[in-house]
Amino acid sequence: MNKLLIVGTVAFDAIETPFGKTDKILGGAATYIGLSAAQFDIESAIVSVVGDDFPQDYLDLLKNRNIDITGTEIVKGGKTFFWSGKYHNDLNSRDTLDTQLNVLADFQPVVPEDFKTPDIVMLGNLHPLVQLSVLEQLKRPKLVVLDTMNFWMDNTWDDLMKVIEKVDVLTINDEEARQLTEEYSLVKAARKIAKMGPKYVVIKKGEHGALLFHNNQIFFAPALPLEEVFDPTGAGDTFAGGFTGYLAHTGDISFKNMKNAVIYGSTLASFCVEKFGTERMQDLKKEEVHERLEDFKSLTQFQIKLT
Amino acid sequence: MNKLLIVGTVAFDAIETPFGKTDKILGGAATYIGLSAAQFDIESAIVSVVGDDFPQDYLDLLKNRNIDITGTEIVKGGKTFFWSGKYHNDLNSRDTLDTQLNVLADFQPVVPEDFKTPDIVMLGNLHPLVQLSVLEQLKRPKLVVLDTMNFWMDNTWDDLMKVIEKVDVLTINDEEARQLTEEYSLVKAARKIAKMGPKYVVIKKGEHGALLFHNNQIFFAPALPLEEVFDPTGAGDTFAGGFTGYLAHTGDISFKNMKNAVIYGSTLASFCVEKFGTERMQDLKKEEVHERLEDFKSLTQFQIKLT
Repeated sequence: MNKLLIVGTVAFDAIETPFGKTDKILGGAATYIGLSAAQFDIESAIVSVVGDDFPQDYLDLLKNRNIDITGTEIVKGGKTFFWSGKYHNDLNSRDTLDTQLNVLADFQPVVPEDFKTPDIVMLGNLHPLVQLSVLEQLKRPKLVVLDTMNFWMDNTWDDLMKVIEKVDVLTINDEEARQLTEEYSLVKAARKIAKMGPKYVVIKKGEHGALLFHNNQIFFAPALPLEEVFDPTGAGDTFAGGFTGYLAHTGDISFKNMKNAVIYGSTLASFCVEKFGTERMQDLKKEEVHERLEDFKSLTQFQIKLT
Repeated sequence: MNKLLIVGTVAFDAIETPFGKTDKILGGAATYIGLSAAQFDIESAIVSVVGDDFPQDYLDLLKNRNIDITGTEIVKGGKTFFWSGKYHNDLNSRDTLDTQLNVLADFQPVVPEDFKTPDIVMLGNLHPLVQLSVLEQLKRPKLVVLDTMNFWMDNTWDDLMKVIEKVDVLTINDEEARQLTEEYSLVKAARKIAKMGPKYVVIKKGEHGALLFHNNQIFFAPALPLEEVFDPTGAGDTFAGGFTGYLAHTGDISFKNMKNAVIYGSTLASFCVEKFGTERMQDLKKEEVHERLEDFKSLTQFQIKLT
């Protein structure tokens, strides 16, 4: 069985959307990635850190999805990373209300012995030096996927460049791709990113779907048009979990199969946004996923007669 | 051979984009629709009006594409409709600098005898009462497609409702769909529009593609990711021309075939934006269109193995 190593935050979130607000609930990039990748028949592990204020129930929730959390350190007397945000009415933008790094401030990731030769690595959004430190502990995996955000471009540019040059796939949202490359056209932005290292670039456009670039090839997956997006938190990480989970499961990292991985990622993300936080991902059944993949097919597939 | 009747403006445009500006050039919704539909083996006619300041060369250009312009009135001593606009740097928004209605102010459309029983009618963006007056001169066609814009919602709501309830397909952009229905979700907006009359709704999202809705079915066509959009003027009308031209050509107005029509429309629109005004559409070859349809296939088609 192929191994997927996930690095990222396991955290508390407090979320406010036009539909309601939550208290501190389970959040974090690695949590969303892990729950999403758990849809596939793979071995996965999360390298992360929490404080001892983190409920055992949350840890059990991950363990019960067959995710190895021996690499998730529990810091005695420490407090778990906390993020709080409020979405605007259109749900396309949000304000961060509070960020408490807590135990994340001194996080030194340690990859468990069992996962030092993973097939695929998903480096979730974190300080680039933490991402780099994980890579240095590994035998070169078949595929390394990196997610990042504008915060690291603004504050740790040189470190970010060091990790970007070492990865195979960069997943990034459209505005961040523009910031990273100073190109408005996403086609040009992707080409510039490829020159920084990653042979594959995934540009996430939220409700407008996701683009996969490789050499001169482009693939596009729409987001499923939904009646209502309830809470967009974690959609990008859920996408990344579906993308890497599918690649690990199939063991095929060709561009052709990455198209399928992008479709799987979009499919899983379309569930994530239906409820608050990780709620929808916790009870998601394989049959529901397969049914929605059929929706993606009707949404996008056509058989044209040329004129 | 199937007949497509096109109603809309034939006009002068002056356009400014970050890449340059034009003097008065050939423009108008019906012009773009006509040039786009001319890619198909159909009989088409434009019902419109111009002043006698309109160059014979421009009329010949349409005639040479086999478009019947006997229904395009030339008003003696009249001046042609003129629009001037300037695009912002991202090309997603623009300011109207000048609008001179001129002969359009008193336009009384007259459908030529030969086109009173068309198979398909494309009602381009115009005063709803002008659109209605055209419909009243016809034997009910197989399919009536209507395009409109926010201006008519703001100023002629009741008239707009009268024509909307009579058409089969509404094409409209995302912001206008939201304004028309007071729904943010495009899925909900499309459902509300269907209750106003049109059984099919096409929501155009510019660089983010187009959605086709019918009952509970949805189809999505992305816009082709381009290195550079040079001038977006006429892209929506070119889409409409490709959509209706393909439907007229195939004579098949099923939802399944409308998917192909949406793909054809998107393909033709991707050419339109490559040069100023109608320039690119004037010399577009069928082989180029077929080649780009292949690009659309690679962009969107996948063969997924379920896990």
